[in-house]
Formats: sequence, C-alpha cells, structure tokens
Amino acid sequence: MSLKDYCFDGKRTLKLKEMPTDAGEYKVQKSELTAQTEENMIRAAELQEKLYSAKQEGVIFALQARDAAGKDSLIKKIFSRLNPAALKITSFKVPNKTDLAHDYMWRINRAMPERGTIGVFNRSHYEDVLVVQVHQMQKDYNLPPRCKTEDFFERRYRQLNNWEEYLWENGYRMVKVFLNVSREEQKQRFMDRMELPEKHWKLSVGDMKERALWDEYERVFEDCINATATEHAPWYVLPADNKWYTRYLMSEVILKTLESMDPQFPPLDAEEAAKIPMVMQELESV
Amino acid sequence: MSLKDYCFDGKRTLKLKEMPTDAGEYKVQKSELTAQTEENMIRAAELQEKLYSAKQEGVIFALQARDAAGKDSLIKKIFSRLNPAALKITSFKVPNKTDLAHDYMWRINRAMPERGTIGVFNRSHYEDVLVVQVHQMQKDYNLPPRCKTEDFFERRYRQLNNWEEYLWENGYRMVKVFLNVSREEQKQRFMDRMELPEKHWKLSVGDMKERALWDEYERVFEDCINATATEHAPWYVLPADNKWYTRYLMSEVILKTLESMDPQFPPLDAEEAAKIPMVMQELESV
Repeated sequence: MSLKDYCFDGKRTLKLKEMPTDAGEYKVQKSELTAQTEENMIRAAELQEKLYSAKQEGVIFALQARDAAGKDSLIKKIFSRLNPAALKITSFKVPNKTDLAHDYMWRINRAMPERGTIGVFNRSHYEDVLVVQVHQMQKDYNLPPRCKTEDFFERRYRQLNNWEEYLWENGYRMVKVFLNVSREEQKQRFMDRMELPEKHWKLSVGDMKERALWDEYERVFEDCINATATEHAPWYVLPADNKWYTRYLMSEVILKTLESMDPQFPPLDAEEAAKIPMVMQELESV
Repeated sequence: MSLKDYCFDGKRTLKLKEMPTDAGEYKVQKSELTAQTEENMIRAAELQEKLYSAKQEGVIFALQARDAAGKDSLIKKIFSRLNPAALKITSFKVPNKTDLAHDYMWRINRAMPERGTIGVFNRSHYEDVLVVQVHQMQKDYNLPPRCKTEDFFERRYRQLNNWEEYLWENGYRMVKVFLNVSREEQKQRFMDRMELPEKHWKLSVGDMKERALWDEYERVFEDCINATATEHAPWYVLPADNKWYTRYLMSEVILKTLESMDPQFPPLDAEEAAKIPMVMQELESV
C-alpha cells in the first residue's frame, strides 16, 4: 500500500471494515521504515523552518480516534521532532460551560495557529459530529427549536465543509487523520492502563464503557469521513495497532503535506538589503 | 416609510441613491418618535432579561458606516438602555499584527457573545469586504497565490453568508445595520470635530481623506449589502443625518428582532421546585 491508499479526498468511498488496522505485510520492514520515519521528520523540520520564515501559509493536523488509539503518543513521538516555537498543540477535552454557551466552533477558532505555524488538534471540531452523534447529545442542547432539526448532523457536515473551504481559501490546510485501532488492540491497551502504574493516569473507566458502542462509532466515523473528505481537506485513515507503523505513516503524511505546500524562505527586504554594505562596515570597525 | 422599507433581506435590490439619509417627512414627528424610542428600549430591556434567563439564543447587531455616521453615539445613547451584564460591545479597529497572522474571521469569532447575550459589533467582519475592497488591501496580504484570485471578494461574500447561516443554525441571529449619512452631514460633523474641544479626540485626518473615495465606498457598500442580505441575516439601511431619527429606527430594529426571537423565562427546575416547601419552612423559622 502507498500513502494514497490510506487517503480519502472525496473521490472514493471509505469502508472502514476494508481498511487495515495493523502493519500487515510491512511488519518485516520495521527497521527500514523506522529509519525512514527519522529521515522524514528531519526533512519535515527543514520545511517547517521555511514555513515559519515565510508566514504565508498555515497547516493543521487534526487527530481523531477511538480511545487508546495512540493520539497522545503520536504527538509525543512524532511532532516532538519539529521546532516547538512554530508548533501549536491543542487538546480538545469535553467542552466546558463557557464553550457550551457559545457556538460549537468558538473554541476551535480560538485554537487557530498563526500562518507559518503547524497546528495539531488532539481531537477537534469533529468531536461535535462524532461523540455528539453517537450519544445524541444535541437533544439536550439548550438551543432554539429551529436548530434541532432531523438533519442536524448533515447540517454540521456542511458547516464543517464550508469552514474547511474557508480555511483553504485563506491560507490554511486542514489534514485530518483517523487512527484506526482494532478492538483487540484497544482492549490490550486498556489492560495495560490498569496494570502498569506509569499508565494509571491515562485510565478512565468511562472510556472503556464506550467499547459497548463499538459498531455505532464505526458507523458514525465512516459516515463522517465520507461526508467531509475533500481534495483540499483530506482524511487519512491510518492503521493504529502497531505504533511504529502509525508513526512512519504519520511522518509520511506530514512530509507529503509540507512538500506540497512548498514553503520558501522569503527574499531579503530591498530596504534592508541596501543597508548591508554600511552595516557590514560598522561590524568590522567595532 | 415603515421599518421594512429600510430592511433588505435578499428579496429586493438595494440602490443606495434611492435611500433617504434624513428623517424627511418625519421631522415634524420628532417629539412623538423620541418618546417612542424610550418606550421601545424599556420593552427591549424586558425582553433582554428573558433572553438572558433562557440562554437559548444570542443576537448580534453589526454596525457599519462611513466615518462620523454615528455608530459610537448610537451605542452610547441606545444600547446603554440595556442591562450591560447581558451586553457585549466589541469595537473592531484596524487589524493588528496578531489579527493579520490569522484568518480574517479569527478576531471576529473571539468576540462572539454567549447565547443569552446581546452582542454589538462596532464595525465587524464586513470591514474585510469594505475598506479592504476599496483600498484593494488584499493585494499586499501575505497569502499563497491560490488565495489571491480575481473573485477574492465574491469568495468572501460567500464565506460571510456561510458563516451567518452557520450562526443561524446554531442559535444566533445576525442583524446588520448600515448608517446612511449624507456627504454634507459628514462634512459638518468633521467640522465639529475640528472646532469643538470635546470632539477633538474623535478627529482623524486620515478619516477625512476617505471622503475623496465617496463614490467608490458607495459602490462597494451597495454591492456588499446586496450580496449578503438574507432572510436570516438581514441588512437595515438607516438614514443617519438626524441622530434622533436614527435612534428611533435603531430602537425599532432592536425591539422587532427581540420580539421575533420571543425569549421566555425558563420553567423552574423540577428538582428545585420540589424543595420549595421545605426551604420556605426553613426561611420562616430563622
């Protein structure tokens, strides 16, 4: 499989059951691909430097997944290779009272990175069509009746598509990543959280209850990804059972995205350039 | 003329030259209409209290105008009649460096009032299709080439319409007001700013230079209003030469908007209600 086999940009339909959750035939290539991951991130950091210098375009990687699929460790292990000065990580937890008193995109907009910066959303605006849809939370929202329509989530898909088109037209790229973990692997990771003291802090019994809704989440993830996969804001559905392989693929996604943005160091300002001979002379003399 | 003659909601085309800039035949009714303004705002404050208690819907009044058309004094004289605890005024000045490093709606989104609150935008997201269009500022924006298209402002109109539709679908109303001042009245007000010490602080020679672009602003205001007037986010084009008349019309716009929202005090929570007899007894005994 090449990276484009994991990419959904609106031209084909995702069927989650047909997508791999592990490295499969690539397991034998673990050492080469792990080395490639390192190389990819070195190259990505070079491109980030150009992006940061030009400040012309921004990019956001939005990570969505079931619990224990590895979002946090992907950030720790992969995005850590980038310059944190030009990186903005935002973790979206359960919305607080102030968030809920506003429109649902309010907290997302506040997290927008400046152009020239790489943003990472650990969970994102997609929570508002995923967990909200699975649990039908919108029914309890304090909204006027006109807003609580039968097509509530179709409207939200349209709203999200409109927003991502707006970002594209205003100097941003949105790249959406779904970490596709298997039911068995998730179970094992939950077991680890219960058994290993250094993983206790990740433990939430509430998370585990969501396993009972496995099929419903699968249906909603699939529906959502198909409704919001576009050329300018694609989804990548990455196998998440083997962390080294997810990291390799994520490094490919980051590098491919930055390469397609093709950032360039800005030219020296003409006024500044004109002063160089004089300043050089001054530097020599002191 | 009734209020709907000043309203543009997409069903008819605005021709600014045909719209009055002063009170015209209503000048003789100044005292009745001024009294009516007071009554309207008392009623509006009552409805604001219900809106604030219910927290189900929010509303934003966005004020746009040429310089010296009276935006600031309208806020001081009319919105001052409302409870400031449920009122959020945001003045949008020239975007700063942090604003410009983000997408143009970033600073607007940060100013969103909570539902239950009345927001006032003194200037707004429309600056980005008005002053920017007149001065063709987008040409100097540090944006990737794909964003600097021939149809830059048509795209922005679409983006603004999408956003206002999103607000409507998520519990907000957006009411847009253009204060229509005449060239002669603006000149007089600028003269006052130069001559009266208590108005010196409002003086900006830069503002006055914009008068040379009067016709270009007229064309752009008209184009923008026609492109963004919708049923759920209408424009009101209010004559602004006679401040008492503008205030009267603005009070009508506020009252009509709040009446159509029809806010209701929320019912007493059943759990709280069940405790009332006990608590009453306690209150009696102490």
